[in-house]
Amino acid sequence: MIVVMSPLATKENLQDVIKKLESLNLRTHLSTGDERTIVGVIGDKKIIANLEMEMMTGVEKTVRITEKYKLVSRDFHPQDTVIDVDGVEIGGKEIVVMAGPCAVESLEQVREAARAVKEAGAKILRGGAFKPRTSPYDFQGLGEEGLKILRDAADEFGLKVVTEVVDREDIPMIEEYADILQVGARNMQNFQMLKALGSAKKPVMLKRGLSATISEWLNAAEYIMTGGNENVMFCERGIRTYETFTRNTMDLSAIAAIKELSHLPIVADPSHGTGRRPMVAPMARASIAVGADALMIEVHPNPERAWSDGNQSLTPAQFKDLMANLGDIAKAVGRTI
Amino acid sequence: MIVVMSPLATKENLQDVIKKLESLNLRTHLSTGDERTIVGVIGDKKIIANLEMEMMTGVEKTVRITEKYKLVSRDFHPQDTVIDVDGVEIGGKEIVVMAGPCAVESLEQVREAARAVKEAGAKILRGGAFKPRTSPYDFQGLGEEGLKILRDAADEFGLKVVTEVVDREDIPMIEEYADILQVGARNMQNFQMLKALGSAKKPVMLKRGLSATISEWLNAAEYIMTGGNENVMFCERGIRTYETFTRNTMDLSAIAAIKELSHLPIVADPSHGTGRRPMVAPMARASIAVGADALMIEVHPNPERAWSDGNQSLTPAQFKDLMANLGDIAKAVGRTI
Amino acid sequence: MIVVMSPLATKENLQDVIKKLESLNLRTHLSTGDERTIVGVIGDKKIIANLEMEMMTGVEKTVRITEKYKLVSRDFHPQDTVIDVDGVEIGGKEIVVMAGPCAVESLEQVREAARAVKEAGAKILRGGAFKPRTSPYDFQGLGEEGLKILRDAADEFGLKVVTEVVDREDIPMIEEYADILQVGARNMQNFQMLKALGSAKKPVMLKRGLSATISEWLNAAEYIMTGGNENVMFCERGIRTYETFTRNTMDLSAIAAIKELSHLPIVADPSHGTGRRPMVAPMARASIAVGADALMIEVHPNPERAWSDGNQSLTPAQFKDLMANLGDIAKAVGRTI
Amino acid sequence: MIVVMSPLATKENLQDVIKKLESLNLRTHLSTGDERTIVGVIGDKKIIANLEMEMMTGVEKTVRITEKYKLVSRDFHPQDTVIDVDGVEIGGKEIVVMAGPCAVESLEQVREAARAVKEAGAKILRGGAFKPRTSPYDFQGLGEEGLKILRDAADEFGLKVVTEVVDREDIPMIEEYADILQVGARNMQNFQMLKALGSAKKPVMLKRGLSATISEWLNAAEYIMTGGNENVMFCERGIRTYETFTRNTMDLSAIAAIKELSHLPIVADPSHGTGRRPMVAPMARASIAVGADALMIEVHPNPERAWSDGNQSLTPAQFKDLMANLGDIAKAVGRTI
Repeated sequence: MIVVMSPLATKENLQDVIKKLESLNLRTHLSTGDERTIVGVIGDKKIIANLEMEMMTGVEKTVRITEKYKLVSRDFHPQDTVIDVDGVEIGGKEIVVMAGPCAVESLEQVREAARAVKEAGAKILRGGAFKPRTSPYDFQGLGEEGLKILRDAADEFGLKVVTEVVDREDIPMIEEYADILQVGARNMQNFQMLKALGSAKKPVMLKRGLSATISEWLNAAEYIMTGGNENVMFCERGIRTYETFTRNTMDLSAIAAIKELSHLPIVADPSHGTGRRPMVAPMARASIAVGADALMIEVHPNPERAWSDGNQSLTPAQFKDLMANLGDIAKAVGRTI
Repeated sequence: MIVVMSPLATKENLQDVIKKLESLNLRTHLSTGDERTIVGVIGDKKIIANLEMEMMTGVEKTVRITEKYKLVSRDFHPQDTVIDVDGVEIGGKEIVVMAGPCAVESLEQVREAARAVKEAGAKILRGGAFKPRTSPYDFQGLGEEGLKILRDAADEFGLKVVTEVVDREDIPMIEEYADILQVGARNMQNFQMLKALGSAKKPVMLKRGLSATISEWLNAAEYIMTGGNENVMFCERGIRTYETFTRNTMDLSAIAAIKELSHLPIVADPSHGTGRRPMVAPMARASIAVGADALMIEVHPNPERAWSDGNQSLTPAQFKDLMANLGDIAKAVGRTI
Repeated sequence: MIVVMSPLATKENLQDVIKKLESLNLRTHLSTGDERTIVGVIGDKKIIANLEMEMMTGVEKTVRITEKYKLVSRDFHPQDTVIDVDGVEIGGKEIVVMAGPCAVESLEQVREAARAVKEAGAKILRGGAFKPRTSPYDFQGLGEEGLKILRDAADEFGLKVVTEVVDREDIPMIEEYADILQVGARNMQNFQMLKALGSAKKPVMLKRGLSATISEWLNAAEYIMTGGNENVMFCERGIRTYETFTRNTMDLSAIAAIKELSHLPIVADPSHGTGRRPMVAPMARASIAVGADALMIEVHPNPERAWSDGNQSLTPAQFKDLMANLGDIAKAVGRTI
Repeated sequence: MIVVMSPLATKENLQDVIKKLESLNLRTHLSTGDERTIVGVIGDKKIIANLEMEMMTGVEKTVRITEKYKLVSRDFHPQDTVIDVDGVEIGGKEIVVMAGPCAVESLEQVREAARAVKEAGAKILRGGAFKPRTSPYDFQGLGEEGLKILRDAADEFGLKVVTEVVDREDIPMIEEYADILQVGARNMQNFQMLKALGSAKKPVMLKRGLSATISEWLNAAEYIMTGGNENVMFCERGIRTYETFTRNTMDLSAIAAIKELSHLPIVADPSHGTGRRPMVAPMARASIAVGADALMIEVHPNPERAWSDGNQSLTPAQFKDLMANLGDIAKAVGRTI
């Protein structure tokens, strides 16, 4: 349930409302806008069903929410959420670019990638130290050694770090190196890990599952937010369909959907979304046009020799070209990059 | 097979090549560029397999094509094809907008829609007179009477007409009223109709089938082109996936794919592609950003009373707003609108 | 709407009911069971909405139908429909087997196939004379010459003929050769052809579209039945999914669904449904177990040399083995074969 | 690589082969058949590429395997694997039935279910104590308390227990109560958990992911087997498609595929596979017909009051009817039940 306060409501009115709700063991979430404050209410359904708040002073109206997700819902929190990643804002006017190799292979590789993406304008370095791979015989990542490489290269070039978590046990360790904790598509409904991320200190980027509905995706984010971590961003990376020309079918309408249904930022990943190098640039442009708050792009110093995902990685030169072209699109939708 | 002529080849060299190919009962398609001419060769596979053209004067090299589609392939015809729709060019620098109601309901409805879309900048009026409907008890369209209404309204406001063909028998009659013949998603592999459209005089807009692969779509266009009608454009209108929040999943990467694989123009239909009014504008913007040559948008004077597809139709005012916003995006990708 | 007559209703009561409905320009369809008669009512929704039939003598109750399909619905016609194909019954206790090559290639090929499938116990010969092919350069079938071959081979060995219709213009001609008119997956929503089949004299087998929902499939059959042709059977041949190990994903639950929702018979096609020879036998067994009324199996005298679908065709020997194994399964579900 | 020993090979020949392979740091897996022994070889690809084993005495031939999965492959292990679940064999001639409620709700509920399923012939009790739920506000299971209930009810009625693991940390605790550890669809590619299950002492049942390919599924099992746990069985529970009439689309051809590609047993779950009570019985029959080694069926004493999945649960009476009907089908495919 949402309690919408009147523009004329006083602080005391608001505190009375909260006090009443808490006295019934209900949890509250405040969203303070320019004109009015909105109080989100979560808790025992039966108690909420019998709540009558309209008669309290300062309450304009109440709205019942039928969707299961609450904290991620734009109904609960009408303003866009802007996440502060150690100084880099995601969800604001500026479109943020995350770039780097699929997997951390060596310090040289990561340094070369970091230098290139920084020069082209990226703010965040991506790279996998723990790789979820279909086969147990494929390269599984360098682990903590890879995290150190990422951190060192990022620090050298003034970048932030986003990297994937594949096991909830690793969260405290990864938090020491990374600025954003990525949940991969295969773990979108690894609910134990989502719960653990709810008490993580760092922002979380939640990739859409291979065949997750938008509703399931929002509910997965709700798992993290109910744990207390409000810094959640989504990442569209393509869904599984019958089409085989592309690696996945990138669902750009999902970006519009998330913007409509939630206040949280959303990142677009055209590299995994298409799996084909020539499509990365046009789909990056389209992602900005449809409303993405950030882009995630695979860049490898030498894609043909990449240990994974070479087909979809840009060279530093291609990435530079791409970045040079995004400013006009961003401007056309009232953003900067 | 493709025979690439040398930049130094003379007209006589080219004619010798063509003469030789025709003497073997092979068909040829010329694509004349600024620097060199390319000769596409179609016919008996065994004869082509044994062809040795490299030794002929003026031939630079030959390329074997493994894809089944030839005439639609960009290998065969490297330059973009621009289709002239009675003075309106599709596939050139200008992005063309087609708009109007899902179904023709009455002269008043169509006139009102035509006036509105013309004022906002559309060049082509859309509307269905023959409606393929899931149930036999649903409204099946006004038929020829609907075509007259479309033509009259279009002429009054200086618009061209695009409308759907559902039966190959109707083609000659529909050609008298329409400027573009639309093949709907359900008929994308109605091969008899595609063959008949091969000898139609008007351009054809081929919508992607509900679950058609990009390869099947290109081959469907090949059916039309082999019949002699070279004015074929594609239309992405969403594919069927597990997601139910949207009516279809609009596959914008398919637009990039068509641009890569074919020289033919492509139209984006965010109305059917999403089935949800609030998504039409963002997905229209993204369609332009990814490279679409035209947009198809449903506009109804009174969407709540539309006989079909009301949920996805814009009001005239919403359409006007949308059009006012597309210029910047078009400019950002080097196009006009 | 359905009008359920009382077990005690007289013929006069029934005639009064029909007279009343027809006087309101409503159409009626009778379903006469052992105990009671059911009158299906179709026509103007507003008139039906205001109908009050319960007070008429002999009427037990009326039931409003919310699904769009009526005539195909088991609500309208509770008993199983048994279709008489020139003496071969489909939908009764006996499971009927249709077998033969994908495409008619030559008289020798079809005669050899016909002899083999007849000896193994098939009742109906399958074979395509008109082939819907993805590419215009693929073999499109022998046309009427192929139909003659099919008919001659079938007559020689005492078989019936099922063959595909790809153009409504061909229906009268194909009816002269075939006993069952097949609608292929790509034409399931070729509504003009469905309407034309509504006035055909021969039974129709309606294959499920590549990505058709069960509801769309039932409505497609409704198009045929509303035209007056009540001899419609369904055919499950696999749907399109992300899985590539099989050619399609055969949806056996659709057979259970059709049996629940409709009174019409259903055929299972494990050859197209799986596209892999080793799976044909196990999926044929499962089809019978789940309730299929008939099987359609591709058999080619020499699969490696088949012009199409060789990978999924059984040899005559494999088909004989398969048939020898189906009796026990049929018996286990109270059927014969 | 597979080394196929000659039927005439001596034990010494075999030991020489193994010794040679181990000296190269390669791992070996023996599969001893009636006639010959097969040695599966896993390890460094480069070393294997250069292996020349054919000249060793007793070696008949070597076969290179291109698929990434090895230990699960039927090439490596031609005989069917039979898993001994504390005396109940899965993968042998007898089809084993696992049944019980979706979630453990109370001791009474589980006891009632256990009594009913035992009486009807089930050998294994199913029930979830840890429930992966789309929303954080849905019932998440009773946890260890639920496991105790399951164990007690199972012991009282002489049943074994299968239950889901959702967190690798819980494995040792769950092993104390359960006989089979279930991996749910959402965790099929939770690779950390799969690795942990590789050192579990109890057999694992690996459900197919919502949109997992057969190849991904086999590779997921390979993760468990490479860890040393050879008692892995698959469970087909339906995949995600566009069809909404059923909860999932149960892919029975996947059962045939697993039987072709792997030696491991496979369970069919028509309750989750269809999500609709009336379809459970026909799809259970079809599962046996296509080759399933076991069935998993949801049974609840009072489905309308079930906390989850009530729509797909059978009543005890319905389950009894179902079981009474499966014997004939089992017999028809040479099995018992």
